[in-house]
Amino acid sequence: MAIEWTSSGLDLHLDWARGTGQGLADAIRQAVRDGRLAAGTRLPSTRALAADLDVARGTVTRAYAELTAEGYLRSRQGAPTVVAELSQPLPETPPQRPWPPMGHEWRWNLLPGRPDTTLFPSTNWLAATRRALAGMTAADLNYGNALGHAGLRAELADYLGRVRGVAAVPDRVAVCSGYSQALGLLAGVLRAEGARSIAFEDPSLPECRQVVIAAGLDVVGVPVDERGLRVDALAALLAGPDAPAAVVVTAAHQYPLGATLHPHRRAELVELARATGTLVIEDDYDGEFRFDRQPVGALQAMAPDLVVYAGTASKTLAPGLRLSWLVLPERLIEPMRTAKFFADRHNGVIEQLTFAQLLRSGHYDQHVRRCRTRYRRRRDRVVDTLTAVGARFDPAGIAAGLHVVALLGDGVPEPAVLARAARRSIGVEGLGRCWLGGADGDRPHPAGIVIGYAAPPEHAFGPALRALADVLSEEMS
Amino acid sequence: MAIEWTSSGLDLHLDWARGTGQGLADAIRQAVRDGRLAAGTRLPSTRALAADLDVARGTVTRAYAELTAEGYLRSRQGAPTVVAELSQPLPETPPQRPWPPMGHEWRWNLLPGRPDTTLFPSTNWLAATRRALAGMTAADLNYGNALGHAGLRAELADYLGRVRGVAAVPDRVAVCSGYSQALGLLAGVLRAEGARSIAFEDPSLPECRQVVIAAGLDVVGVPVDERGLRVDALAALLAGPDAPAAVVVTAAHQYPLGATLHPHRRAELVELARATGTLVIEDDYDGEFRFDRQPVGALQAMAPDLVVYAGTASKTLAPGLRLSWLVLPERLIEPMRTAKFFADRHNGVIEQLTFAQLLRSGHYDQHVRRCRTRYRRRRDRVVDTLTAVGARFDPAGIAAGLHVVALLGDGVPEPAVLARAARRSIGVEGLGRCWLGGADGDRPHPAGIVIGYAAPPEHAFGPALRALADVLSEEMS
Repeated sequence: MAIEWTSSGLDLHLDWARGTGQGLADAIRQAVRDGRLAAGTRLPSTRALAADLDVARGTVTRAYAELTAEGYLRSRQGAPTVVAELSQPLPETPPQRPWPPMGHEWRWNLLPGRPDTTLFPSTNWLAATRRALAGMTAADLNYGNALGHAGLRAELADYLGRVRGVAAVPDRVAVCSGYSQALGLLAGVLRAEGARSIAFEDPSLPECRQVVIAAGLDVVGVPVDERGLRVDALAALLAGPDAPAAVVVTAAHQYPLGATLHPHRRAELVELARATGTLVIEDDYDGEFRFDRQPVGALQAMAPDLVVYAGTASKTLAPGLRLSWLVLPERLIEPMRTAKFFADRHNGVIEQLTFAQLLRSGHYDQHVRRCRTRYRRRRDRVVDTLTAVGARFDPAGIAAGLHVVALLGDGVPEPAVLARAARRSIGVEGLGRCWLGGADGDRPHPAGIVIGYAAPPEHAFGPALRALADVLSEEMS
Repeated sequence: MAIEWTSSGLDLHLDWARGTGQGLADAIRQAVRDGRLAAGTRLPSTRALAADLDVARGTVTRAYAELTAEGYLRSRQGAPTVVAELSQPLPETPPQRPWPPMGHEWRWNLLPGRPDTTLFPSTNWLAATRRALAGMTAADLNYGNALGHAGLRAELADYLGRVRGVAAVPDRVAVCSGYSQALGLLAGVLRAEGARSIAFEDPSLPECRQVVIAAGLDVVGVPVDERGLRVDALAALLAGPDAPAAVVVTAAHQYPLGATLHPHRRAELVELARATGTLVIEDDYDGEFRFDRQPVGALQAMAPDLVVYAGTASKTLAPGLRLSWLVLPERLIEPMRTAKFFADRHNGVIEQLTFAQLLRSGHYDQHVRRCRTRYRRRRDRVVDTLTAVGARFDPAGIAAGLHVVALLGDGVPEPAVLARAARRSIGVEGLGRCWLGGADGDRPHPAGIVIGYAAPPEHAFGPALRALADVLSEEMS
């Protein structure tokens, strides 16, 4: 169907009809490539285009989000979406799902957010499976509690209290299939309550924002500095007409920049949340990996009825497990139970009970300690290497986690470094995609490379780092 | 907030405001109980009420669906939703999730749709886990393919071709977390394409319809007879103004009545689907359990590009596994990949590879054969018992599956039998909830009890059956 975007005053013919199997994003992408949609062209609002095409608004929102992530469009809060300048040649087959990059095996994998899965404790996992199967009742194998098996919820409540200082009782724990599902279900619950948007730190992981957009909510950005989330900026947003219903915060180790939320900011954030009725979602994605001091306890403990705590086994064990957990404020327990029930009834029970056994046996703690030692060593080597090649990085960001950000000099364009790394088959990520307005937003954003030092197996770590050092020193020279 | 339903001309004050934590369903339920909403009162359309309350339409749709399932409201296709006659006393705490009944342990569990989980092959499962862990690579433990691990998809394609006559290649197989997730994701994909409703057999499992309603689609009913789905009635629906985009059919063993879709009907259905572009979703929930003849092959093989085949391990192994699979028409592969990716990235990889090993070893086939023998024997005993107490049942329905429907005489009210069974702590289900308009719909529906004979452990099966026989003979006498 060739339609005109009458609502936007554009006389544009978009070759697209629903039900043909072609995605709306594909059609718009083609139009940008063909030059039918010139750089700077304002697109209709998602609402207007959805009405014109007679599709759900979410379809348009998802297409815009995908194309923004791919660099075809630029979206900024409060401004219309426009066609981006295609200054760099676009890939012929743009990634459908930019994260995780699939179908491409990097020779040197330094992608952030991934643990070294060669460390996976297979022997302990198998032993835990044996104990889980031996202790399991016929009722356990039937349909179960949507929020998780009581045995696992009890172990998680104990573990989170002990290791992360979370104020957790088993009844408030919800077991989910990865942080994406947990965040998506939370977004759905908030949307059903009337929420329109959720605030994210700027910069933050774009894939998390996409999950919220896919759930039908808008995303707004709150800047961060060396003390973490700028609570004053959040307060200004919350005083405005389109106040977000929740804010996602990586308090222990800001992703990607690495700051720890300052104690004063923690108190201010809780106070602000209480005063405005805003939900805080604490994404504790790598809270177990603090190297230089005692772990920073979870923000959640300061206000268990205002803060959702979210943790995951993706960084400690393996992303492939799809295992995550929330600790919920009282009022969200029943809505989340219903949401999880309608999503998939509950997580698989054998894996739940296996993980409960792994926690109970102490093998999980032992595994985390082992990984922490390993990653601390790698962190030191990354820091040495970056120092040697003259790269800048924020020392505050290196105290924890599985990644570090190498900041690039003013004259060094991020895409050029990424392209050079790609030619050497080094998988790293750019800082640019983490900003809400994209790298070319209004404010001048520092350029940088996000280096995940946990991902490669031990034998490949040294060579991967040397290859990266070569690339960086070539760029800096 | 006390609002007036101006759009419906009602002057009704509903004490509800979003964000208070109270559900909309609770508020309406309370209004019905208090008598503020009298029996027969027409409720506003979901669209009108959503606008009045300034909430998403899905919120209202879900609340209406929940209250209809609980018997507070009556909804019929094409007619306004009305407040039901509360002829029976309502439970003080109405069930939040009517299926599976949770928090109640029946002494005699004869609930349909559940296998005897005491038969779960734990030893084989553990051995399969060992092989899966031994063969797993570090990459397998990372983020994986949203549609499932290639190893499991290949085993499933082979198994489904061999055992169910499905035309399956690995690339078309999608691994999901239970049939609910699979159906919910399909409904979401269809909705994004512009679909408004999906047709179900009438009667059918209400929980499946609820999944579709939760995904934001309407549900319409198509009658069934002793030859299965009435394809002529579906054709009439498809010729109407609100043609459903898809039809869910239990071709091998109609749930709950038990008919097998007649060969002529299969051909007619495929022809109709092709002529109208309607998607057929074949819910093959118990296709492995055919007792009296050779298994009836999947309908899907007749038209792999029109039919989605859906299978599950919930009846063969255990519902607690949350493991299901689809075989998709080509055009749905990419949309389903995206939908699954945004839902939870993919199923947990260890359980996927364990199940692949179980299939490869032949232990899965062996387990299914063992269960089939067991359930056939139980089926024979149920039939003998029903015959002895003079209950009627459709002989066509007993040739397969895990349940049988005992039809009640005209003077025997279903709720009375269910209540009597409940007093004896016998878990069975009524036929009434399976009809789309409820048991008291326009057409006179036969009353009946759905008896799941697979659920109890072997030692409890005889006593459970005797207890049920007592209840039935008391009612009949």
